[in-house]
Amino acid sequence: MQCGFAFVEASCVRCKNAGNALLKNILDTSVTVIAYWTCGFALAFGKGNSFIGWHAYWASSDIEGDYMAFFFFEFVFAATAATLVSGALSERCDFIAYFIYSFIITAFIYPPVTHWAWTNEGWLKAGLMYEINGVQEVVGFHDFSGSGAVHLVGGTAALVGAIVLGPRIGRFHPETGADMMLKGHSMPFAALGAFLLMVGFLAFNGASQLTMTKPGDNVIIALAITNTIIAGSMSAFSALVVRRFMGRNWSVIYTVNGCVSGMVAICGGCDVFRPWGACIVGLVAGICFNFTSWWVAKLKIDDPVDAVAVHFSGGIWGVISVAFLSYPNGILIAWDKRSGLMLAWQLVGLCAVILWTATLSAIMFGSMKGLGMFRVSEEVELK
Amino acid sequence: MQCGFAFVEASCVRCKNAGNALLKNILDTSVTVIAYWTCGFALAFGKGNSFIGWHAYWASSDIEGDYMAFFFFEFVFAATAATLVSGALSERCDFIAYFIYSFIITAFIYPPVTHWAWTNEGWLKAGLMYEINGVQEVVGFHDFSGSGAVHLVGGTAALVGAIVLGPRIGRFHPETGADMMLKGHSMPFAALGAFLLMVGFLAFNGASQLTMTKPGDNVIIALAITNTIIAGSMSAFSALVVRRFMGRNWSVIYTVNGCVSGMVAICGGCDVFRPWGACIVGLVAGICFNFTSWWVAKLKIDDPVDAVAVHFSGGIWGVISVAFLSYPNGILIAWDKRSGLMLAWQLVGLCAVILWTATLSAIMFGSMKGLGMFRVSEEVELK
Amino acid sequence: MQCGFAFVEASCVRCKNAGNALLKNILDTSVTVIAYWTCGFALAFGKGNSFIGWHAYWASSDIEGDYMAFFFFEFVFAATAATLVSGALSERCDFIAYFIYSFIITAFIYPPVTHWAWTNEGWLKAGLMYEINGVQEVVGFHDFSGSGAVHLVGGTAALVGAIVLGPRIGRFHPETGADMMLKGHSMPFAALGAFLLMVGFLAFNGASQLTMTKPGDNVIIALAITNTIIAGSMSAFSALVVRRFMGRNWSVIYTVNGCVSGMVAICGGCDVFRPWGACIVGLVAGICFNFTSWWVAKLKIDDPVDAVAVHFSGGIWGVISVAFLSYPNGILIAWDKRSGLMLAWQLVGLCAVILWTATLSAIMFGSMKGLGMFRVSEEVELK
Repeated sequence: MQCGFAFVEASCVRCKNAGNALLKNILDTSVTVIAYWTCGFALAFGKGNSFIGWHAYWASSDIEGDYMAFFFFEFVFAATAATLVSGALSERCDFIAYFIYSFIITAFIYPPVTHWAWTNEGWLKAGLMYEINGVQEVVGFHDFSGSGAVHLVGGTAALVGAIVLGPRIGRFHPETGADMMLKGHSMPFAALGAFLLMVGFLAFNGASQLTMTKPGDNVIIALAITNTIIAGSMSAFSALVVRRFMGRNWSVIYTVNGCVSGMVAICGGCDVFRPWGACIVGLVAGICFNFTSWWVAKLKIDDPVDAVAVHFSGGIWGVISVAFLSYPNGILIAWDKRSGLMLAWQLVGLCAVILWTATLSAIMFGSMKGLGMFRVSEEVELK
Repeated sequence: MQCGFAFVEASCVRCKNAGNALLKNILDTSVTVIAYWTCGFALAFGKGNSFIGWHAYWASSDIEGDYMAFFFFEFVFAATAATLVSGALSERCDFIAYFIYSFIITAFIYPPVTHWAWTNEGWLKAGLMYEINGVQEVVGFHDFSGSGAVHLVGGTAALVGAIVLGPRIGRFHPETGADMMLKGHSMPFAALGAFLLMVGFLAFNGASQLTMTKPGDNVIIALAITNTIIAGSMSAFSALVVRRFMGRNWSVIYTVNGCVSGMVAICGGCDVFRPWGACIVGLVAGICFNFTSWWVAKLKIDDPVDAVAVHFSGGIWGVISVAFLSYPNGILIAWDKRSGLMLAWQLVGLCAVILWTATLSAIMFGSMKGLGMFRVSEEVELK
Repeated sequence: MQCGFAFVEASCVRCKNAGNALLKNILDTSVTVIAYWTCGFALAFGKGNSFIGWHAYWASSDIEGDYMAFFFFEFVFAATAATLVSGALSERCDFIAYFIYSFIITAFIYPPVTHWAWTNEGWLKAGLMYEINGVQEVVGFHDFSGSGAVHLVGGTAALVGAIVLGPRIGRFHPETGADMMLKGHSMPFAALGAFLLMVGFLAFNGASQLTMTKPGDNVIIALAITNTIIAGSMSAFSALVVRRFMGRNWSVIYTVNGCVSGMVAICGGCDVFRPWGACIVGLVAGICFNFTSWWVAKLKIDDPVDAVAVHFSGGIWGVISVAFLSYPNGILIAWDKRSGLMLAWQLVGLCAVILWTATLSAIMFGSMKGLGMFRVSEEVELK
């Protein structure tokens, strides 16, 4: 996934910055290893309360036996959440600032969200007890492989970062404010990134079952993987078709980003959708991607790789779609109290993730901007 | 495999068309997902008669439990069969036509062949009962991971498509008809494609055992993978050496295609050859590749990526080689009634696959040509 | 791994030679398949004495059942050991010479070392019986996934080869001898190679447990993989930081090579270190890499891809680090007779591997040089 994101980013920036983008993505992996190993995993999965963990696992101490495999798996997700952000800030973010925010996101901002969403003591996953049709039943937040907990966190941070950082010089006309697309340079890089991400998401989503030898694991894994490729395929098409209707050219990078946004959206419920549900999720994701991409540019936010459109909007739709298309309990299949509560919980989770991430990101990026260390000098940016 | 084929194709076309080739290959994956999911899998693996299936599995309905994993695996094969064709038609085929034929091949042409060759009710796999040495024994068609059912289908469609479509402008001298090689542009793309395909074929052939936890699976999987790398290595060499003897230069793309043709040929019997058999299969495959490549150009058929030489001739040799080198029943090991019947069945399968695919492809490509939608305009092609 | 090394090498050579470097790396895989299949595996794992094997497995004969999987796995390691060398000799080594030495290393030089280090009858692994705290205990050489047996072999051969072959024309000033860096041409290739190698090393080190279904395998595999990513990350940083302190620019290729050298160093003990140990191994590896790279250039040895700095110095540190950081028996954790003996055995293994490889490599490369077939003509080199 890291390699895939790196090449998609390198394809979107101007030629002069491609090497720099790739170097940052390599180092990004290293920073996130260290950040997640030292602090992040403890905050996410160390025992604690319903909000955060802290009792164990600092620098992987106390991790015993094959729980280390779980650590490694969770690290991969953390790295994904952090690396998303770099794309939105590329071509103008300072190198040192890049390290610092990658560290902070991986070590402090991202982990509590996974604590809420993925641990049994987390308030989002635990949910509440309701009486449904006369039976006591627990309903809570469902996010199988991180539409909300991973992509929405990264996408929100990317959005806030791009706003705080401001657009690249020359992105919008200094007087009229007109959109002056700075074209990326490499279709082969985009294609390579796309194929790597397609393969990466299959593993990402299939492996989110966490085990593969318990009875029933095989069923979920096969379903998650099939749903992922279907959603990605449908969203690639719908992104391309919608773009054509908007009167624009075929574009590799649009297709690639459309495909990825579908796979981002399917993360939330790829274990509970039927394949036709994945089809719908993909179709809608492609449309959302186009709309968000247009809307972000309209708001004069400069996001060179469309990370916001892919991960922020894909993440939101992914979280919501779970309530509508879950089989057999989603709103479109069974319109009842349970599905209504599911939607409520998905919305609560959505708001919590966005609020938490946006607040901390604003503080973090704002502080770096205040200290004058967030953006490279005009001279360096133009060079 | 998709990424590998995409980059090999991109390496063979002229620079101006590389981006287009890559875009097509990304969308190709999406088209084949939808085609195979909606129709293809039902025609291939839905219960039916010995010729075709239709009772279940439309749009993956009725698929239960981990049978979805089987669906996903078979989809990957279908995508491979379809993507092969694009190479042979590249630089001149219309974009929409490309989608249409990819859909038709994946949804309708390819699936029945796998029904014949890979399902228990298929007439090729079921074979017939014979009396051999006084014992009743079944002999039928053997094609472990698709020399015939995948590569020969794709290769035949590529051959027919390239004939119907005609050569690129400038490929053969308009008056003398002399061969004017249009050189591809990128050795790194070819190398990347080659390495990805090498890895891809190991999975492709190893995974064709379908399960990995039954007793004996480990033996077959290890053998299939070892045979695959040996055959690919030998054919890379023999392709290179034969080319040198023909007085031509070392060439990355020739070596790559030679290697792939060996891995195509080994698909048929990688579960039943000994490694020395794989060695022979590879050596011969490299020679066949060179000969076919020369012969295709001689016939004034323009195949920019040598897809016909790789998959059509590799596929034919792969199907036939099973009868000669199977251990311990092949003709070269045991010259008896059984091995003779094996050869007969392999030849019957070979003819059936070629006839079926060639006929349907000719109708499909001919119709598109008749409707004037198969080829881009001269102006676009030159641009 | 092959693809990763190929692209790192292609990134380091000048543009004109990138295609050639990639072609060689593709063929390299093929040569090593044939060499290891015919001879290498028998010398390494055929039963024999404590020095070498010979009783079985020539051309994979007598290999039964899933032992073929072991053959395939060991082949991958052999290919890695051989491919390392090509980088150090690139841009000036003759094409045929390249085949010959790849064959000889894979078939004859590398296998005995693995026989010593990885088979139960090998003298290094078997070790000797000692009385420690009144109990009889065996202490021997430990090299989990080949810091010594793979990377040090390749690195030593690379060093000897680079010395015998001499520097590229223009690498050092003909009169003053000043270092005139010949810059590589492609950051994207370096990045692609780096990501592929990161993934490759995870498999390389995790899979060195050889089985994954025995009780306890899961623990070792998870630990080995986690340690690998931590060591690689730390060494990427320390390589970069040290380089900055030496007053040089950020550099993608330096970071990549730093990262790889950390993963080389962790091979030796990734099954017995705690993650903090992996951290230290990585930090030191990055420093060793910088120092060795500087020292090699100082000695007027031309190593275009820094293969010596990565694999020779990384390998040495990897072998030694086992004695210091093994948990709970390493010198830094338990300073006793056992840890002293461990260090002694690691040093003995280190010297044995270097002596054996250097001697045979010197004979091999020296003979090729004597026969005038090692280096391309001046004219070809400049072209």
